[in-house]
Amino acid sequence: MEALLKLLEGLEPDRPGVATGEDGGPAAGAGDETSEFGQLSAAHGPRLGIGLDSCVIPLRHGGLSLVQTTDFFYPLVEDPYMMGRIACANVLSDLYAMGITECDNMLMLLSLSQKMNEKEREQVMPLMIKGFRDAAEEGGTSVTGGQTVINPWIIIGGVATVVCQPNDFIMPDSAVPGDVLVLTKPLGTQVAVNAHQWLDLPDKWNKIKLVISKEEVEQAYQEAMLNMSTLNRTAASLMHKFNAHAATDITGFGILGHARNLAQQQRSEVAFVIHNLPIIAKMAAVSKACGNLFGLLQGTSSETSGGLLICLPREQAARFCAEMKASRQGPGVGVPGPDAGGEGQQAWIIGIVEKGNRCARIIDKPRIIEVPPRGTVSEGNNNSTSPPPPVQSPPVS
Amino acid sequence: MEALLKLLEGLEPDRPGVATGEDGGPAAGAGDETSEFGQLSAAHGPRLGIGLDSCVIPLRHGGLSLVQTTDFFYPLVEDPYMMGRIACANVLSDLYAMGITECDNMLMLLSLSQKMNEKEREQVMPLMIKGFRDAAEEGGTSVTGGQTVINPWIIIGGVATVVCQPNDFIMPDSAVPGDVLVLTKPLGTQVAVNAHQWLDLPDKWNKIKLVISKEEVEQAYQEAMLNMSTLNRTAASLMHKFNAHAATDITGFGILGHARNLAQQQRSEVAFVIHNLPIIAKMAAVSKACGNLFGLLQGTSSETSGGLLICLPREQAARFCAEMKASRQGPGVGVPGPDAGGEGQQAWIIGIVEKGNRCARIIDKPRIIEVPPRGTVSEGNNNSTSPPPPVQSPPVS
Repeated sequence: MEALLKLLEGLEPDRPGVATGEDGGPAAGAGDETSEFGQLSAAHGPRLGIGLDSCVIPLRHGGLSLVQTTDFFYPLVEDPYMMGRIACANVLSDLYAMGITECDNMLMLLSLSQKMNEKEREQVMPLMIKGFRDAAEEGGTSVTGGQTVINPWIIIGGVATVVCQPNDFIMPDSAVPGDVLVLTKPLGTQVAVNAHQWLDLPDKWNKIKLVISKEEVEQAYQEAMLNMSTLNRTAASLMHKFNAHAATDITGFGILGHARNLAQQQRSEVAFVIHNLPIIAKMAAVSKACGNLFGLLQGTSSETSGGLLICLPREQAARFCAEMKASRQGPGVGVPGPDAGGEGQQAWIIGIVEKGNRCARIIDKPRIIEVPPRGTVSEGNNNSTSPPPPVQSPPVS
Repeated sequence: MEALLKLLEGLEPDRPGVATGEDGGPAAGAGDETSEFGQLSAAHGPRLGIGLDSCVIPLRHGGLSLVQTTDFFYPLVEDPYMMGRIACANVLSDLYAMGITECDNMLMLLSLSQKMNEKEREQVMPLMIKGFRDAAEEGGTSVTGGQTVINPWIIIGGVATVVCQPNDFIMPDSAVPGDVLVLTKPLGTQVAVNAHQWLDLPDKWNKIKLVISKEEVEQAYQEAMLNMSTLNRTAASLMHKFNAHAATDITGFGILGHARNLAQQQRSEVAFVIHNLPIIAKMAAVSKACGNLFGLLQGTSSETSGGLLICLPREQAARFCAEMKASRQGPGVGVPGPDAGGEGQQAWIIGIVEKGNRCARIIDKPRIIEVPPRGTVSEGNNNSTSPPPPVQSPPVS
């Protein structure tokens, strides 16, 4: 759920706003969060306002809570169907970040572009809507309404709503020193999407062509699309099984921005330290070649519909990753991509929770884990496609 | 809630789509509805999908239903604060049309215009947000989140959500012959907004200057703003008290479009016949002077955040109107506009429900009720500012 905070701040001086990072902007799109954390009310259960990924509203009925989130943005991939899937996965992800696996209702927010003619609209919009609806169906919900307008730019997004019992969601505030940080999708979607656009822009392409081939750009782009359109639902389900202490999803503020937001919500005095950066293959090199334009290695590159960043008890993390990998992909669980072949999702232990003042940082020389496109064979001893072995666990400081 | 139907139709050939009228477009903005009516499920309570004003989703918990709606559009008045109020009133109106008086949560949808500079944004957006939040507060709810993007055009809207018990809402399907139709705000907002813009466009102004003065345009515009920003909450509350059989709110399809949509949802074989058209003073003349450009007298002129059109038992309607008029305006009830002076809202009996084939029409020469601006003294024998006297009740055919 996006940062209305900057705008609302001016109206509510008592609101503790702490938006770090910056908006991904129209190109990268994704919704972003801020870190105002709602008050806890013993009488009515937890309340989470304009804050992390979803708002949580205690209801007047039987201890139930309303959890909802909205996100909308502009297309960032060329395939309308995949764009629809990504938009829906991105909205649902805010629920999944709270360990919620069900969604009671989805509304779709759409604008048609006034720059498209009737024929273009007829070709593009139904595909985009179908992608959105298919992803909603995978999430066990359906689209029951929405709003459509005409606008200079295409907009797609949605509103996900669920009514929960107290045990259905995990408030993102219980990380403790000794936990580890797990990430469930690789980073680099913004770089991959931009590199793909640069194939047609000689000036831009010349800057990166020494470090990557056109085929590799295409592969990275496909991998990014696949990742962005994958639901974080399996991860949400496993958060309960493995006793997750807190989580958020990675979108516009990048891994570091969201890690910082999450750190600030914790009840214990903790700090998040990131040691490993799993990145779509070659995207680290591309980011370096264009002068760290994106801040990918600094953790500030926007992601769209990124993975969950989860604080897990150390002894549970390896099993969490193993079960992610073993999970059956398919309707209701994740995206059955053409390359997924029934395999689960990779997840990585990327850092640790230590004692600190509710901040987050990346170590000086983080280990870059090159994540090869799904369907390609892992090369040599690069074990990044296997369940995370002990060597990937950073030392407890 | 806007018509996604046309787009969704292509994907679901079995969906009975019946969108009448046309979208109000970006200028008039308002969300519009279609008339697919969801199936009734005895086990889980009524379900209303992409249909009338809100969707109704049976929940997994204790007979509760999730009712929600979304609407967003482009500014149509110059005052940012009033624009914010109008946008919020317009979203809430979809709940009020179902007789719902509470709202558990409001999300705000916003885009900043890329054409505004930083200073303009800082001046305009906080006012717009404040207006939205103030109206939400009047509706007894608050804004807990939302999404903001950058766009060529400013967008403002929201998502209203409530979890209801079965008695909290009135399904809009129970009109019977003998009912009368009541309307709770005058028509003509689109004409007033356009006429006001024409003050600065000589070509346009010349077409209407013979029938209206600049002062009258200004008054009509202020009256339109006041009406659009008035919550339909009092009407929603009185729907229960006076046993309303069905209702909808008047937005982008105009009075006739929405009357048709509502007629099509009825379980009984009924027809809606409209005899009276309460219209903001002089707007009928303006509409005629520019060649029925808007279709105001034909009932097809878009309205934004219009009144409720309610089917009431005939014997209850006059008392409904009287209580609307007597209702105390103020926070939690309606908009305490500078001219409202503690007075309630006007409502009019505008037509009848007779036996028919679920259609709606306006009689050949409807009576035009000129509604003077609030705060001005009613002239002569024009009794349109008084509670509707018997002469306003159309004869039962």
